[in-house]
Amino acid sequence: MTFDDILAAATRLKGHARVTPLLSSPFLDRIAGRRVFVKAEALQKTGSFKYRGARSALSAMDPAKRQNGVIAYSSGNHAQGVALAAAEFGVPAVIVMPADAPRVKVENTRALGAEVILYDRALDDRDMLGATIAAERGLTLVKPFDDPKVIAGQGTTGLEIAEQAAAEGVTRADVLVCCGGGGLTSGIALALEGCAPGLRARPVEPEGFDDVARSLAAGRIERNELKGGSLCDAIVTPAPGQLTFPIMSRLCGPGLAVTDEEALRAMAAAFARLRIVLEPGGAVALAAALYHPGTVQGDAVIAVASGGNVDWPVFRRAVETWGDGG
Amino acid sequence: MTFDDILAAATRLKGHARVTPLLSSPFLDRIAGRRVFVKAEALQKTGSFKYRGARSALSAMDPAKRQNGVIAYSSGNHAQGVALAAAEFGVPAVIVMPADAPRVKVENTRALGAEVILYDRALDDRDMLGATIAAERGLTLVKPFDDPKVIAGQGTTGLEIAEQAAAEGVTRADVLVCCGGGGLTSGIALALEGCAPGLRARPVEPEGFDDVARSLAAGRIERNELKGGSLCDAIVTPAPGQLTFPIMSRLCGPGLAVTDEEALRAMAAAFARLRIVLEPGGAVALAAALYHPGTVQGDAVIAVASGGNVDWPVFRRAVETWGDGG
Repeated sequence: MTFDDILAAATRLKGHARVTPLLSSPFLDRIAGRRVFVKAEALQKTGSFKYRGARSALSAMDPAKRQNGVIAYSSGNHAQGVALAAAEFGVPAVIVMPADAPRVKVENTRALGAEVILYDRALDDRDMLGATIAAERGLTLVKPFDDPKVIAGQGTTGLEIAEQAAAEGVTRADVLVCCGGGGLTSGIALALEGCAPGLRARPVEPEGFDDVARSLAAGRIERNELKGGSLCDAIVTPAPGQLTFPIMSRLCGPGLAVTDEEALRAMAAAFARLRIVLEPGGAVALAAALYHPGTVQGDAVIAVASGGNVDWPVFRRAVETWGDGG
Repeated sequence: MTFDDILAAATRLKGHARVTPLLSSPFLDRIAGRRVFVKAEALQKTGSFKYRGARSALSAMDPAKRQNGVIAYSSGNHAQGVALAAAEFGVPAVIVMPADAPRVKVENTRALGAEVILYDRALDDRDMLGATIAAERGLTLVKPFDDPKVIAGQGTTGLEIAEQAAAEGVTRADVLVCCGGGGLTSGIALALEGCAPGLRARPVEPEGFDDVARSLAAGRIERNELKGGSLCDAIVTPAPGQLTFPIMSRLCGPGLAVTDEEALRAMAAAFARLRIVLEPGGAVALAAALYHPGTVQGDAVIAVASGGNVDWPVFRRAVETWGDGG
């Protein structure tokens, strides 16, 4: 994959994906001790960056094949992205979701017109399950991250970051990215390599699920021992992808990890200071920027706030525990 | 005032005010029965459109005069806008605020470096108080709405709406605007007259504080009997301005009014469907779009979500009472 794949995806997404704003607040700058910029992908269609990759994949698909329908397995954000993209193309979508996914994600996916099939996260292998149903019904599988068209779609976020950061006078900084399987992180890394080489992508994960950080440090793919139990459901994946890992290994800085409580605290800060709604998995990059200032360098940092599909009890807990996150 | 005043303000604001996104959600479209677009000014610097007018006024001020400092009277959003603009120019700011303003607004205004003086909303006349302090200290008063440079700054919101709506294929629609003294509404109306004549600005107010709607209907300025008691603190003003009223009278469609509960319900919808945080006074236009569909015409409506500076108990009440606002 190259920078040209990202540019091609940007052409396909133009007029469909939303250009999300790069937000900031002097209050966040004070917490971090440097300028903090937040790429608000929670404001993307369906409430996360996942729509970019889904629309990218469906728009690049052979129309006859696409017409038969698509299938995806997802804890919820990829699900909604695929559901909306399929609805836009007028084709059926089947989504395989874990039974413990946030209620709001399951309901939204159904409301967007997709058929939802629930599975048990601890017992079932969602990849196997998805492949089986796809074969039975003649559906095309839209993988959540390990697909060049998906990676390219997520990478369009990086094109926008480069342009928006330059407008703020920022050309050298770490770009912290909430990271599950690495689709967004590797896509952004490819985009930045092509148009903003002074910006460096770095994955941020929940503690205990830092497979990407450990894989980058080890130079080979390592897996998480735990399968669940983090509040950051959106970015809990077993291991980095076969396609995403080599890209991240070549281009990304060292990974970071934050606690669930730090993610909640960053959600509170985003509520009070940026007026945006984040989910825990979409707040880990901002958490690293705010509460691990020693692990980044330079006078500015960019954090991608990747999603905002959160159940109310979790959001309430974040703000009632952490106030304004300061 | 003319369209050229808006264009001049846009030039002064370029690189300072944020271009806020125009958001949408199929879930909101379903509630309203037509396409709904939300201009998310809660994502503007300081959490409301007021920064535009404040920066516009300060940037147009004689530098020697500006150097002495500025003063403003405000329930909180204009306060923060003036405080940040003054801080950016490195000049002192005094803000006269009602003692019952939301805590977050008072604290943020102080944190932005301004001196805050509190007054009693029921007993004192904030205009008189502000003028007196301004004279004593040689400060320049930045009025909250009845000032051509402030109106022009707010009007830059309309330039963005026109461009963003056209990109969505919307050239004929009502543009619902949360309305206090009419600075934002009249500014947007002037902008739309100049660049999107098929879009028509209409003020939205809280029930019981619909002085602008009644004034437009009567053809002369009418005042509110009540001085306070609405949750929509940001847009409770005694009467439309001497400058804003003639502009609104010439250009705006009929006014609308919504209840406090409808504003809270719209806040819940914005939380669940747009992932943005609104305050009650910043949600009345969206409330009208969603819950008074019979009062607007056409297959699309644009609502300006003007501010997001809300105390947590009010936000919690909105979501816990109204769920996803559907």
